[in-house]
Amino acid sequence: MLTPLTITRVVTAALEEDAPWGDLTGEMLIPDTAVARAELVSREAGVFSGGAVFQAAFAVTDASVDVDLRVRDGESFAAGAVLAEVAGPARAVLQAERVGLNFVQRMSGIATLTARYVAEVAHTGARIVDTRKTTPGLRAFERHAVACGGGHNHRFSLSDAVMAKDNHLAVLTATGASITAALQGAIARLSHTTHVEVEVDRLDQIDAVLAAGVDTIMLDNFSLEDLRHGVARIAGRAIVEASGGVSLDTVRAIAETGVDVISVGALTHSAPSLDLGLDVRISDADVLVR
Amino acid sequence: MLTPLTITRVVTAALEEDAPWGDLTGEMLIPDTAVARAELVSREAGVFSGGAVFQAAFAVTDASVDVDLRVRDGESFAAGAVLAEVAGPARAVLQAERVGLNFVQRMSGIATLTARYVAEVAHTGARIVDTRKTTPGLRAFERHAVACGGGHNHRFSLSDAVMAKDNHLAVLTATGASITAALQGAIARLSHTTHVEVEVDRLDQIDAVLAAGVDTIMLDNFSLEDLRHGVARIAGRAIVEASGGVSLDTVRAIAETGVDVISVGALTHSAPSLDLGLDVRISDADVLVR
Amino acid sequence: MLTPLTITRVVTAALEEDAPWGDLTGEMLIPDTAVARAELVSREAGVFSGGAVFQAAFAVTDASVDVDLRVRDGESFAAGAVLAEVAGPARAVLQAERVGLNFVQRMSGIATLTARYVAEVAHTGARIVDTRKTTPGLRAFERHAVACGGGHNHRFSLSDAVMAKDNHLAVLTATGASITAALQGAIARLSHTTHVEVEVDRLDQIDAVLAAGVDTIMLDNFSLEDLRHGVARIAGRAIVEASGGVSLDTVRAIAETGVDVISVGALTHSAPSLDLGLDVRISDADVLVR
Amino acid sequence: MLTPLTITRVVTAALEEDAPWGDLTGEMLIPDTAVARAELVSREAGVFSGGAVFQAAFAVTDASVDVDLRVRDGESFAAGAVLAEVAGPARAVLQAERVGLNFVQRMSGIATLTARYVAEVAHTGARIVDTRKTTPGLRAFERHAVACGGGHNHRFSLSDAVMAKDNHLAVLTATGASITAALQGAIARLSHTTHVEVEVDRLDQIDAVLAAGVDTIMLDNFSLEDLRHGVARIAGRAIVEASGGVSLDTVRAIAETGVDVISVGALTHSAPSLDLGLDVRISDADVLVR
Amino acid sequence: MLTPLTITRVVTAALEEDAPWGDLTGEMLIPDTAVARAELVSREAGVFSGGAVFQAAFAVTDASVDVDLRVRDGESFAAGAVLAEVAGPARAVLQAERVGLNFVQRMSGIATLTARYVAEVAHTGARIVDTRKTTPGLRAFERHAVACGGGHNHRFSLSDAVMAKDNHLAVLTATGASITAALQGAIARLSHTTHVEVEVDRLDQIDAVLAAGVDTIMLDNFSLEDLRHGVARIAGRAIVEASGGVSLDTVRAIAETGVDVISVGALTHSAPSLDLGLDVRISDADVLVR
Amino acid sequence: MLTPLTITRVVTAALEEDAPWGDLTGEMLIPDTAVARAELVSREAGVFSGGAVFQAAFAVTDASVDVDLRVRDGESFAAGAVLAEVAGPARAVLQAERVGLNFVQRMSGIATLTARYVAEVAHTGARIVDTRKTTPGLRAFERHAVACGGGHNHRFSLSDAVMAKDNHLAVLTATGASITAALQGAIARLSHTTHVEVEVDRLDQIDAVLAAGVDTIMLDNFSLEDLRHGVARIAGRAIVEASGGVSLDTVRAIAETGVDVISVGALTHSAPSLDLGLDVRISDADVLVR
Repeated sequence: MLTPLTITRVVTAALEEDAPWGDLTGEMLIPDTAVARAELVSREAGVFSGGAVFQAAFAVTDASVDVDLRVRDGESFAAGAVLAEVAGPARAVLQAERVGLNFVQRMSGIATLTARYVAEVAHTGARIVDTRKTTPGLRAFERHAVACGGGHNHRFSLSDAVMAKDNHLAVLTATGASITAALQGAIARLSHTTHVEVEVDRLDQIDAVLAAGVDTIMLDNFSLEDLRHGVARIAGRAIVEASGGVSLDTVRAIAETGVDVISVGALTHSAPSLDLGLDVRISDADVLVR
Repeated sequence: MLTPLTITRVVTAALEEDAPWGDLTGEMLIPDTAVARAELVSREAGVFSGGAVFQAAFAVTDASVDVDLRVRDGESFAAGAVLAEVAGPARAVLQAERVGLNFVQRMSGIATLTARYVAEVAHTGARIVDTRKTTPGLRAFERHAVACGGGHNHRFSLSDAVMAKDNHLAVLTATGASITAALQGAIARLSHTTHVEVEVDRLDQIDAVLAAGVDTIMLDNFSLEDLRHGVARIAGRAIVEASGGVSLDTVRAIAETGVDVISVGALTHSAPSLDLGLDVRISDADVLVR
Repeated sequence: MLTPLTITRVVTAALEEDAPWGDLTGEMLIPDTAVARAELVSREAGVFSGGAVFQAAFAVTDASVDVDLRVRDGESFAAGAVLAEVAGPARAVLQAERVGLNFVQRMSGIATLTARYVAEVAHTGARIVDTRKTTPGLRAFERHAVACGGGHNHRFSLSDAVMAKDNHLAVLTATGASITAALQGAIARLSHTTHVEVEVDRLDQIDAVLAAGVDTIMLDNFSLEDLRHGVARIAGRAIVEASGGVSLDTVRAIAETGVDVISVGALTHSAPSLDLGLDVRISDADVLVR
Repeated sequence: MLTPLTITRVVTAALEEDAPWGDLTGEMLIPDTAVARAELVSREAGVFSGGAVFQAAFAVTDASVDVDLRVRDGESFAAGAVLAEVAGPARAVLQAERVGLNFVQRMSGIATLTARYVAEVAHTGARIVDTRKTTPGLRAFERHAVACGGGHNHRFSLSDAVMAKDNHLAVLTATGASITAALQGAIARLSHTTHVEVEVDRLDQIDAVLAAGVDTIMLDNFSLEDLRHGVARIAGRAIVEASGGVSLDTVRAIAETGVDVISVGALTHSAPSLDLGLDVRISDADVLVR
Repeated sequence: MLTPLTITRVVTAALEEDAPWGDLTGEMLIPDTAVARAELVSREAGVFSGGAVFQAAFAVTDASVDVDLRVRDGESFAAGAVLAEVAGPARAVLQAERVGLNFVQRMSGIATLTARYVAEVAHTGARIVDTRKTTPGLRAFERHAVACGGGHNHRFSLSDAVMAKDNHLAVLTATGASITAALQGAIARLSHTTHVEVEVDRLDQIDAVLAAGVDTIMLDNFSLEDLRHGVARIAGRAIVEASGGVSLDTVRAIAETGVDVISVGALTHSAPSLDLGLDVRISDADVLVR
Repeated sequence: MLTPLTITRVVTAALEEDAPWGDLTGEMLIPDTAVARAELVSREAGVFSGGAVFQAAFAVTDASVDVDLRVRDGESFAAGAVLAEVAGPARAVLQAERVGLNFVQRMSGIATLTARYVAEVAHTGARIVDTRKTTPGLRAFERHAVACGGGHNHRFSLSDAVMAKDNHLAVLTATGASITAALQGAIARLSHTTHVEVEVDRLDQIDAVLAAGVDTIMLDNFSLEDLRHGVARIAGRAIVEASGGVSLDTVRAIAETGVDVISVGALTHSAPSLDLGLDVRISDADVLVR
């Protein structure tokens, strides 16, 4: 879901942001014939994400840089692991280093955090999903990272699924509309391929929503007990999503209530960068010979 | 340093990412005459950043939405504070909500974390500065957030200052060049407005660098004792920057060694989002009357 | 689903395509103080679509042109009807005329053709939907036009729903995979909001697809009799879409087989432009006085 | 006149419109090692246009797809003809198929319709030309298609030739200006390379226009008899263009009046797509071996 | 021919080039409430061009800046003349100053130089025209400036007129083609609105070109005597353009040979900037009161 | 400092400006199999700049054109020198010729003029620097050209160094602020990497500025005698820049006053294009054989 066209476009913009009129340091201090070899090394254990993006950072800078990935997106690795090898003109390697790292550290940080959530619920039928709380401009990258960590994706945007939240229902109520009728009316007008999800805050809202034939019901900020009641009430007639108050401490118990989907904003809005570094090796021979 | 042109361009792209062909939910469930009022409320204490960006998210969506900021960028606030008031067409308010929050939560998260670092060193002469470890595409926004938190900015990009790191010096050494001569040569060719900073890993590298007349020397991953030795050796002849191993636990002691500048990558690459929410109020009157 | 940001972006590009360095004729022959009034008139009956796009063509050219729509998108009108009134600087009115017409004639042509299909099936439960056979760059506009004509939209793009066609199934078969298992595997990995549709060419393919729990089954190029058999076999366990060989002559009978959805590529790839014109009135007074 | 830069830009945008975050179906169901071979086949006779555009749709998606054109732009073919062969990664072939077809079906539809008009007038000296009634964003593509069908192009845009229509003349009249003097004044200020064409609605307008030294006179909505009178009156002193009411039924008689140029809006605004399809062959060997 | 859309696009890019992340000086030293008044003053006599561009530089920076033009494009002025008055927020005035000047100095420089050429030939029927030797990205601006100086424009680009030069004729000759036949063939395929110009290097080439029915013949690097012979030979059957070796010293004699058009590359590739300055007045009251 | 990404972006835009819908002449007259060889020849002596840009003009047009540079950027050459050899499809060579020349003539013109200034001051310690008086959109290109001529660059933009001019100081004075204190305040808030330069108009302003600890003091429009006094007063405590009234006639004397930096706006705003031409050779064999 992360396309080559998107990678190239976003990475190019990032490189121009980081060096709008070149890398002064490299141009002033590095002979343009010098060659560098480098390893992408992890200082901590984690799950990898962003290999193709990392490659693109170097390729867009200089097509002659070679990046050999040692780990595939979604693979786990231990602290100290070599994730990729980079070789090429030293100027290009040093110029692209920071942008490449900025992407892969963020993406691997998200994948690693996601994997911890996924592990907590692996014994249940629940899936961990992301939200729209992503970094502006990087949604496709961060959703890919969630998938690398074993998570699932929620809708991509406001345009590809309906999610009626408390505020939408409040408007319907204020207009005097029947929630059930309003949702049925929407479903009748929507594409037959559009998924309809509705958020409820209380158990007593479930029946009206269910009667409209929605696809998913989100139980927002429910207690564990209420989640269990909600699952029982819905009884397989819609997918059940739990949301709100989800953390690594609480996710296991939430999953054990029987919900199908647990959405976690923190996967993308607060995952710390994974500590990866590029260890550059510049041999005398490389610098002198060429 | 965050210009209106940049804000408009980046916010527009974020809105298009989040609703490439509209907000299905709003279009299906919200009468286009409904009006909403909302408050941007903080669930935790912090430092505000991103007011103009938050405003732009609504203004680009629908110019008739009014956003009244209650807090200025850089101001502190307590948990529960109302940071802004939003009023306008309900569809637009609900559509722009997530994008507006994504920006302001990230920026305020960075400002808040920065302020904690700054408070730790306030009794010293040291300044806390950011790095190039920013989110691709959002550097101007994140640097602004660091400034809101009381931090200072480092160079914006590879194009506006020289920073010679260990890898650059390794190349010079491999070529048999004198570090001092190489740096002097670079300074002679650079613009007279370009700042030159060099990173050293060991105390014994300082003299050669100093002899070249550089502006700043970065002491990378030095022990506290070595930092003190470094400050003494440099003796005011260059600005002294400490880098590496900086955390909220260590920053005070580092500042007390007498360094001038402490760079902290975590300010931008790992600051958690601040927990802000938009509380929407939709009155019956607003929905019905219009 | 057609957003103001999209309209402005696409209309601006169209205007620049049509006058990259201005309108020579207007600049040479029309005094810049001359004012024109004009009416958008239909030479034939139809269904309107593209009012906001028509307005944008003039507004982007010159913000002082006023376009007053007399008909709303989706409304029917008779031959000779006045659909909009335009008033403003004559140079701008004449410059934007062709681009405005190009959009609204195409969109109204699609809406009008769609309405004819919809009328044919109005006595059944079937909906008429569009396809991805749209004009490159104008998909959002053409889907909006289909909706104006009373049709429904299918998925917007390859990114927002699964549609497994004969070629996809052929690959699965070639790999020795079980169709049912392969589809189940895909569903397990997809977002819970993603709709899954599968195309079958023969009745005997239905059971394997149905067993996977897909949302929609498309019966491609089925005879009327086979469509009826298909509907009976599926028996409400999935949405049934008919596709292939659909024309104004055949659509009624297809709908009467009991299918839920009928997709018609011709709505967008072959709808003739509706014959609309802009009748410009330039009074002596307007030209002389100002 | 359709440049590689334009093709790449427009095709890339079309591909991003059709798969903004990837092709879910291919990613979920097609092994990334599977290879597909396909033929572009015509279901009806016609004239080909868009070969390079069709190639670009695949090449931009995946540079390793090979598209071998069997027919050149402008060539006629019979129903059932194989127009091109495509071979490459199955995911890319299936992803690019629809966009490639959308372009080539539209362009070949225009070329085919144009060829029918051209055939009607082949025994005369008249040329068939297009108008500015093109699809927004695709003018260069559609003009190329007209040329493929044996038609000629009119001016590309408002910027590269003058075309004074009834409304322009109405303004001149309203200002009290002499038409002849106004046109002479414009010609004196225009580039010597700019062609000047004026539309007249009545025979008695010809002399004033001719006196100004214009290059082409368009006789708009003239009867056949008036066309003949117009040709005689102009007598070779300007190119004569006929416009309005041109259809396949009327074009032959119009051409036989002796006009030089016949402009036909329907070539681009109402040409139906040509019925082309991509027959994909996926061999077991291709899927299994690789 | 310089459209508002073009002005806004190019001026915005120029402002972003000049202040990608803001104006450090203004932000640090100028209170955001300070107001400035300024005058655009010329240090030398000249012809004005670029008023709307100058206005746009300020308006894009801050819509509240008011720019009152005192001179219209194409007007002459003496040294010391006030060309415009600017008033608004001091930060915006100072930030946009340089970009605004860069445009208007270049454009007025071109207009002024053009006017000198035009004055030299005013007693003849010759017109002074520009060439494609313009600044990349600024062609529309520079052509407008030429027109302001009383010059005429040549074709805008390779796409809107044919200009066969020596190299094109060399190819034709190499292929064994008849020049006349080749040109006639081209004319038969081109749009009837496309002007055809051919460059000749020798008098004996004229007849073959003339026989093809071209619109303009360019006599390249002809002596004055040969120009006179050329004019006589062509005898009004084509427009005659002189090119090559044109300077302020030679242009009068060239014009007096009777040629119709004289193209001068230097108008755009070597016109010195006109010496204009922005005299800023910042009153105490403006700074203090607000 | 001129990056490949920038070159490709700007050159592509220039090529699209010059041939938005192709090169009519080449398409009509040049067989697409014809091959051309050409030499970039200088009609006058100069300093070369823009080799990579010249190459890009051809490569973007057609990747199969080969451009072999004979001179490196910054090298001097005599009149008549061959600077590059070009070989490839004749259509592409002729189409890209003008755009390639437009860049390289401008850049080499700047380099050549810069070299003349640099030669005048070579016996002193002064460096010649550019200003922000560059062509909108081409700043990176023109700064590179200045460096090719032996000049140095000043700050790139308003964003990467502070330059307080007379107007800024006037505001400070109007607010009643102490210049020294205001500058110190700014320095305290700026990045430690940001260079601070202040312009003074009178000798008596120097002390207050110097006291603030600024990096560079610009002496604007000083007499030679005052320049000498200024240098003495500053006495090495800041870099000294002379500005205003600098020409080839005056620069030597200015340099001999002991200033460090001399900024010259004319380098970029008024350098005449260097007279370079592309001599195309089209052999019969090339045209016929292929």
